[in-house]
Amino acid sequence: MTERRFSGIGVTPLSGVGTVVWYAPDADLGEPPAPETVDADAEIDRFESARDEAREEIRAEREQTAERVGEAEAEVFDAHVQFLDDPQITEGVEGEIEGGLPAEHAVSRTFDRFVERFEEMEGRMAERADDLRDVRDRLVRVLVGGDRVDLANLPDGSVVLAERLTPSDTAQLDPERVAGFVTATGGRTSHAAIFARSLALPAVVGIGEGLHDVADGSTVVVDGAEGTLVVDPDAETREAAAGSEDVEIRAEPVETADGTPIEVAANVGTEADLAPAADRGADGIGLFRTEFLFLDRQSPPDEDEQYEAYRDALGTFPEGRVVVRTLDVGGDKPIDYLDLPEEENPFLGERGIRRSLGPDADLFETQLRALLRAAGDGEGKLSVMLPLVSTVEEVREAREVLESVATDLEAAGVDYAVPEFGVMIETPAAAFLAPDLVEHVDFFSIGTNDLAQYVMAAERGNSRVSDLGDYRQPAVLRAIRATVEATEGTDVWVGMCGEMAGDPELTGLLVGLGLDELSMSAVTVPQVKRAVTETTVSDARDLAERALAASTKAEVEAVLTETTR
Amino acid sequence: MTERRFSGIGVTPLSGVGTVVWYAPDADLGEPPAPETVDADAEIDRFESARDEAREEIRAEREQTAERVGEAEAEVFDAHVQFLDDPQITEGVEGEIEGGLPAEHAVSRTFDRFVERFEEMEGRMAERADDLRDVRDRLVRVLVGGDRVDLANLPDGSVVLAERLTPSDTAQLDPERVAGFVTATGGRTSHAAIFARSLALPAVVGIGEGLHDVADGSTVVVDGAEGTLVVDPDAETREAAAGSEDVEIRAEPVETADGTPIEVAANVGTEADLAPAADRGADGIGLFRTEFLFLDRQSPPDEDEQYEAYRDALGTFPEGRVVVRTLDVGGDKPIDYLDLPEEENPFLGERGIRRSLGPDADLFETQLRALLRAAGDGEGKLSVMLPLVSTVEEVREAREVLESVATDLEAAGVDYAVPEFGVMIETPAAAFLAPDLVEHVDFFSIGTNDLAQYVMAAERGNSRVSDLGDYRQPAVLRAIRATVEATEGTDVWVGMCGEMAGDPELTGLLVGLGLDELSMSAVTVPQVKRAVTETTVSDARDLAERALAASTKAEVEAVLTETTR
Repeated sequence: MTERRFSGIGVTPLSGVGTVVWYAPDADLGEPPAPETVDADAEIDRFESARDEAREEIRAEREQTAERVGEAEAEVFDAHVQFLDDPQITEGVEGEIEGGLPAEHAVSRTFDRFVERFEEMEGRMAERADDLRDVRDRLVRVLVGGDRVDLANLPDGSVVLAERLTPSDTAQLDPERVAGFVTATGGRTSHAAIFARSLALPAVVGIGEGLHDVADGSTVVVDGAEGTLVVDPDAETREAAAGSEDVEIRAEPVETADGTPIEVAANVGTEADLAPAADRGADGIGLFRTEFLFLDRQSPPDEDEQYEAYRDALGTFPEGRVVVRTLDVGGDKPIDYLDLPEEENPFLGERGIRRSLGPDADLFETQLRALLRAAGDGEGKLSVMLPLVSTVEEVREAREVLESVATDLEAAGVDYAVPEFGVMIETPAAAFLAPDLVEHVDFFSIGTNDLAQYVMAAERGNSRVSDLGDYRQPAVLRAIRATVEATEGTDVWVGMCGEMAGDPELTGLLVGLGLDELSMSAVTVPQVKRAVTETTVSDARDLAERALAASTKAEVEAVLTETTR
Repeated sequence: MTERRFSGIGVTPLSGVGTVVWYAPDADLGEPPAPETVDADAEIDRFESARDEAREEIRAEREQTAERVGEAEAEVFDAHVQFLDDPQITEGVEGEIEGGLPAEHAVSRTFDRFVERFEEMEGRMAERADDLRDVRDRLVRVLVGGDRVDLANLPDGSVVLAERLTPSDTAQLDPERVAGFVTATGGRTSHAAIFARSLALPAVVGIGEGLHDVADGSTVVVDGAEGTLVVDPDAETREAAAGSEDVEIRAEPVETADGTPIEVAANVGTEADLAPAADRGADGIGLFRTEFLFLDRQSPPDEDEQYEAYRDALGTFPEGRVVVRTLDVGGDKPIDYLDLPEEENPFLGERGIRRSLGPDADLFETQLRALLRAAGDGEGKLSVMLPLVSTVEEVREAREVLESVATDLEAAGVDYAVPEFGVMIETPAAAFLAPDLVEHVDFFSIGTNDLAQYVMAAERGNSRVSDLGDYRQPAVLRAIRATVEATEGTDVWVGMCGEMAGDPELTGLLVGLGLDELSMSAVTVPQVKRAVTETTVSDARDLAERALAASTKAEVEAVLTETTR
């Protein structure tokens, strides 16, 4: 058999070999039968039974997810039950059946109409379209009696192929058994891609419709570095894939070839990411996003729940540093219990520290109490960092809140410690103000995703301008350099926690720009650690100087290529 | 009679005295009568007649506006006719009548429902809510037989009071007869405020519901500097208002007290703004927005129509410079014949030069042809400027298009000249890249509205963060200084065309930062010219240095206050 290759977007630099398990292939219902042959009453009964069965399935999956991943992650299933019981949808399906359609066609047509309607909306509503598809596919599968793929109990070495993977799908995948996954749709920032990076799974997305030509049970190689899927690979391809991760995992901290230590840490978005980060050799956590504690629930987590979560993180890295970012939400996030405004441009709106010093002041105080208590536990080293800072006043005010929390804890006789205190540099304002901010903090952490977006005035998620919002743009490099420069001759250390930090091809440049710490998706920690050991500071500085003199992204890329060769 | 004072937001630094004409006060319909007393057939007839009468009124106003202001401005009335004839709305009203409401209550209730629905939508759809209100108020007035205020034919010295003024209202106001206006709603950036600044009318907005206590026919003083409306003013207040604009209008260019010339120009948004700009003593046009040529019509203006518009502008300032900004639209503007995307964050999307080098390349070429032909006419001095530049490549590409247009005109034997070529500095990227951009242009023009918005990551139109997006923020001053610094020792001149340039309290600071040109709403040209003559460059540089050293907006303001005292 000759091997066949499919091209897509690789989202982790890992390869794997395994056996294809097709997940929820879109059922082809074919043309509906003539309306006069349809017994409407019988079809409505079938629909009702299918809803009951689907409700039972969802209940079981919810339970399993709560146990395996966490209560917050499990709550997505509650939305599914709501759609299942939505009177407008139910009436729609029954209307279609009375119009002469069998139940599965009626479900498919009605849900598609609602999916379209949600897709036309902005922001948080558009995200519900995926949930609706989830429910539609489940109902259709139950109705046509399709076999069910139990994502939580796949055979070892499975490579999951799917049109798309929804949040509820990925929450069930067991990284111990899955050898990788490949989807027809999706991009580098899709939920599935982020998931793959968190769990260090080989993955390729965006293959296109051709993916459906790959049969269940085929042997495949998923090459996340090249962004290819190879079906029926020959011996050579299989061997190359098996040996592809020749990067040693280093548990110990690393330094450049000429002896400058560089901290290499991981970004984590949920508690489930902690162990994989340690397994990949991260020195600590450079960005602990706390949003997962607040999303998909009916009320905010209390102080004790947060305290436990922060302690867990510190416990995973008893020798390292855990940098916790305070709650970073805004008008584009669906959190019902917060008064989040609808905004024309949510990325230029009330988010990050602006909310913590404004409408979410109570939450901020509770979060800081939990953090100071966790810092007082003695294990690991906790740092607190503020998101979206754009003025000096914000830093002063936040520090005042922190100090008053410390005073309260002291007075109450509760154990606590004052953690390291820093700010994210992710607005151009923060880069321009770095010489002033440096007097108020222990560290900076440059968030290159947002920084690039604001410097270039180009939203990364908007495909029409995403090329502009690239961190290789010379204007972005200059903003980074201005930030680092402000720390020189001070005790303030400066890290980076955007995607840029995880690109091993840029490690030399970042060392040359003067960064002390790099934090990234766990998966690339070994590659970046290796790149650090292969760099010398003097070469790196020379490289940085040439990159800063470049006028265009193409010139920056030429400087990088020249050096790599 | 004792005078009464109402506070609001002054939008021009001008005062005026006049007699109140209430425009379309919201008709108080009272409680509807008992349903059984309503003759549905008769009410439906009344509704039909009211629609006919409203349609006739709209047609007449459309004609008058087309003649007085322009065809583009008149097209807003076409949308009104569409709403009048909308079958969904008509059915809604008829349904309410059949449910027992008189026609005026039925119209009011149905339109309010649609207004609400539009207001919940984002961007361009939300703007339609104002049009719906327009149509609702017109129908209700016709039905209850209310007197009609003909905005286009007000008595001399009228002060218009209104709940709000819509675009179609302001298009009809005759600045020769109106002494000012005051609205209950609206902010500094509302349509009415922009209109007041363009036409140098005394105006106060955002007074609140108290405005409705002011009776038609009252004598009032509108004090746009203080943001107050004084009803039944005493002799002293009236005199103060009459003499309040003691600023001399200077037709000639000005220089600082120590002899540095500073060009003081006007921003204009329509052809109707040109003459008032010349009347206020502007040296030229520092920002000629060309969007008005493209909005509210079914197809883009052709080359000849544009050529005429640019010639008119040059003809108004035969001794001055006219800086024309190429088309600057994006996903938040309603232009049906362009494929404008719906974007999650339109201000971080495909707009300005990004569209001109992308989907609107044909329009860009046509606009440049018209501009090069107008530049070749010999009268005045034309400059072309690119909006939202964020890379050097964009400038190179745009210049290539300009050169190929010149080659085509040459080959065709058409008269043309190559105009001055510049870029707006309104993204942080452009400020960081200024040392590179300077090699490709004749001038920079700093757009402080957008620059402040992107530097601070805070949308100016979003009231939750508008304080952050202020041009007095130290980070914004530093971005301005970085831009000017890059031009020192070159032939490139640098201007400013944001709102900051029109604030006479900042003129000294801007001279000190090194700006060569300031362009603003026509209304403040005399104040800024006076401020220039009162400034010395050495004092201004000292002031700028202190402002650049400030860490917070409060410190910047303190530096400014100190100096003014």
